[in-house]
Amino acid sequence: MDLQNELMKRTAMFNTYWQQYLQIKKPATLYEAARHLPFAGGKRIRPFLTTVACESVSGDAQKALPFAAGLELMHNFTLVHDDIMDHSMLRRNLPTVHVKFGEPAAILSGDLLFAKSFEAILGTSVDFSMFKQLQQDFIDCVIAICEGQQLDIEFEQRKTVPEQEYLDMISKKTGALFELSSKGGGLIGGGNPQEVAALQTYGMALGLAFQIWDDYLDMSSTATTLGKDIGNDIRNGKKTLIAVHCLSHATGKEKRLLDDIFGNRSASEHDVTKVYDLFRELGSVEYAQQRALHYVNQAKDAITVLKPSDAKELLHQLIDYIIQREK
Amino acid sequence: MDLQNELMKRTAMFNTYWQQYLQIKKPATLYEAARHLPFAGGKRIRPFLTTVACESVSGDAQKALPFAAGLELMHNFTLVHDDIMDHSMLRRNLPTVHVKFGEPAAILSGDLLFAKSFEAILGTSVDFSMFKQLQQDFIDCVIAICEGQQLDIEFEQRKTVPEQEYLDMISKKTGALFELSSKGGGLIGGGNPQEVAALQTYGMALGLAFQIWDDYLDMSSTATTLGKDIGNDIRNGKKTLIAVHCLSHATGKEKRLLDDIFGNRSASEHDVTKVYDLFRELGSVEYAQQRALHYVNQAKDAITVLKPSDAKELLHQLIDYIIQREK
Repeated sequence: MDLQNELMKRTAMFNTYWQQYLQIKKPATLYEAARHLPFAGGKRIRPFLTTVACESVSGDAQKALPFAAGLELMHNFTLVHDDIMDHSMLRRNLPTVHVKFGEPAAILSGDLLFAKSFEAILGTSVDFSMFKQLQQDFIDCVIAICEGQQLDIEFEQRKTVPEQEYLDMISKKTGALFELSSKGGGLIGGGNPQEVAALQTYGMALGLAFQIWDDYLDMSSTATTLGKDIGNDIRNGKKTLIAVHCLSHATGKEKRLLDDIFGNRSASEHDVTKVYDLFRELGSVEYAQQRALHYVNQAKDAITVLKPSDAKELLHQLIDYIIQREK
Repeated sequence: MDLQNELMKRTAMFNTYWQQYLQIKKPATLYEAARHLPFAGGKRIRPFLTTVACESVSGDAQKALPFAAGLELMHNFTLVHDDIMDHSMLRRNLPTVHVKFGEPAAILSGDLLFAKSFEAILGTSVDFSMFKQLQQDFIDCVIAICEGQQLDIEFEQRKTVPEQEYLDMISKKTGALFELSSKGGGLIGGGNPQEVAALQTYGMALGLAFQIWDDYLDMSSTATTLGKDIGNDIRNGKKTLIAVHCLSHATGKEKRLLDDIFGNRSASEHDVTKVYDLFRELGSVEYAQQRALHYVNQAKDAITVLKPSDAKELLHQLIDYIIQREK
């Protein structure tokens, strides 16, 4: 199985499927705002994971599509609302929803996508007992994402954050959705408890690796000038794993440098570069890379219990894809 | 049956019940923001309606509590988000959630209440087929509320709005939730199709009467100075039924007065009073009162098919309560 080929094929299938939840109705502005992000592209890694996890326990991928659609609708809703909170201007190379349609329509269209996500999962062909588990897991996942986003915002105001708290935050903000994408596929596919638990562990580890690798990619750029995002993250005091490591290992002069510049919104380009350099000097960038690889191995270990299959091979390839991709 | 007594009794029972969905967890700020409005009081008319509608078809009110909790959680979520969009500073005599906790926590706590509303309805003891209908109705109701809020916002930018479009807007923004509160109680109580349809019609008519009476109360004040809200509504060009009627009946000088002042954010107190007076002179205030009474009668007619019971008597009293209450 070739991952890139499978990703393309399944993304096309998924995109055709979930459009039924994104029809234009009136008032048109509300629906255009709701369609903006879903139609702006995206790799659909989470729906991909759900259908492949379903197949990895000998399930039919078609049966997992409604739940996958629910997860992707919910993912898009959280992005629309997060972009308002984070004052983000661009996503997927397009203006964010609140920039293009105004904040009221952005809040409402996020709410609409959230409502539609429950309509999607209601279409899953399972018995009531299984449905209840899927919907409760889905609700717990949304709540975890809300908690994670709140923590992420609060962390920006704090001087330091212990690594364990950082991991708790990303396990909620990013990990929970990967975890349920994988576990949900296993449940719908009829996996036994051991298989479902393995897929759940795999999904969470994959999500953590994904998020930490994201942070690592941002900071491992070899460009001679810093990207705008990196500068902003340093000026906003964004607590990535790299920053968390650096803050806890800096002493003396380094500590004073961080005190002065990290989280200082009016820091100069020159000062920001000093912090960027310190991230490397203290081994924080390399540390993040190693932690991402740790979760990659955890994900690989988790699925050793699955029977050999094309789907299992795709799950393996997906792990490597996560840490090979460029942003 | 005494309505006030029943309202108090059932509100107390309901408040005890739905607190299970409002427990404090971490991060505390998120949960405190989510609890702010639910614990700020409120008459709980919608949950009251759900339990009474359930009893009116010989159902057990206890069985309707989870769905009633879902509706009230959802109602509170829409209020939190609406207050952000409308820049409202006060609700139930307290600072709004975004004023007290900041906008990010307000958006997130609304999302959290929305997620919890689905957890609540998942607890309804019905078979899968009935559950699917209840959840789909619930989703359609949220979507209607989002559409209604978007229309309400868009109306402020328009010079005139036909009465039919105004009615469509409030049937979504306010009517849909009353409709489902009543219909849902009937479904859970095991009502036959004719009874459920009657309760549905009753709920919508009650909701329309409620909203139009609200507009009427605002404008029928006999105080010599205008309240701040009335002045703001006139300056913002808010399309209440009174404004809609007045805009479509004004001619000549009256029309020019409205053109100049209605929707003019810098209009003087003196000018605003002229519009307020015009609302009465053209019979728009009286018209709104009559339309509210029309829906009151529609609600009364709808439930003639229900068997006589204490609950039916309460549904009758609730209609009169809606148009007797002071704000």
